[in-house]
Formats: sequence, structure tokens, C-alpha cells
Amino acid sequence: MPKFMDVHTDLKGLDQAKLEAAHRADVEIQAQEGVRFLHAWADPAAGKVFCLSEGPDMDAVKRVHERAGHSPDEIYEVDLETE
Amino acid sequence: MPKFMDVHTDLKGLDQAKLEAAHRADVEIQAQEGVRFLHAWADPAAGKVFCLSEGPDMDAVKRVHERAGHSPDEIYEVDLETE
Repeated sequence: MPKFMDVHTDLKGLDQAKLEAAHRADVEIQAQEGVRFLHAWADPAAGKVFCLSEGPDMDAVKRVHERAGHSPDEIYEVDLETE
Repeated sequence: MPKFMDVHTDLKGLDQAKLEAAHRADVEIQAQEGVRFLHAWADPAAGKVFCLSEGPDMDAVKRVHERAGHSPDEIYEVDLETE
């Protein structure tokens, strides 16, 4: 299943509790779209959040985020990866 | 140790071999700066690469990427994360 990295901006003042609450809101409804959010990383000073997910397509990921109340500013299908 | 997410743009036409070669170039010299590159994800159609690393500070991560020949366009200290 394809993976996606989406980016949220302008979220300055984010803290661990807010990040977890936002992530939980995605996870609670993600099955409706066949999406699985895998990880999120945030820079609270810059107001930037990166979410890694997998799902059937980019629109499905966007719909989960939209319904959870936080549409991403950018989203990329990350077909390549390495570690 | 802090974690960082850096972003490279305008790398259209990237493929798995090029991504791995670029990542290897970082990994070969990362110990000089006390940095560890953990994972990289790429969207070859958009020319976007996201690299997750840990290291003593942002400048150390930047120096590794610079010496490896691919300075990032953006870099964020991702103090918060969740899965």
C-alpha cells in the first residue's frame, strides 16, 4: 500500500498533548478510509507537523485529516524509502 | 538526543538507487558530527525528500548533508512525536 507524508504548517504552540489528541482524532476514523497513520513528528517552535501514513490513495489520507479537523497544507506520495 | 526532519526539493527523477546512494554518502560521514540518519522517504514525482535524523544540533545535521553534496532546503527540530 502506498505511503504518504503530509505536512501541516502554522501550528505554533503545539505541545505533546495537542499532538496526541490530533493524532488520536485521525486514528479513530482512519479505518473508514482504509488509511493507517504510522507516525507524526512536530517542531512546535516552527509550527510544523509531518505525518507518515499508508492508505489506498492520497485523497483518502486527505479526507481523514479533513474530517478530523486538520487538513494538511501539503501531501506527498513517498514511493521510495531507505534507512 | 534531538531529532530532525529535513526536506529536499527539486529532486525530480530520483529513483531507489539514487536515493540509496545519497543516503549512503550521509551515513559514511555522519559519525564525524555525531549524527545518525534514521530514515528517508522520497516522492520522485514531486522531487521531494524527507530525512529523519538524530544528532547534537541542527547545524551538525546540515554539515553532514552539505559535505555529502546535498544541502537540505529546510530543516526542523522535531521535539514532539507520536505513533
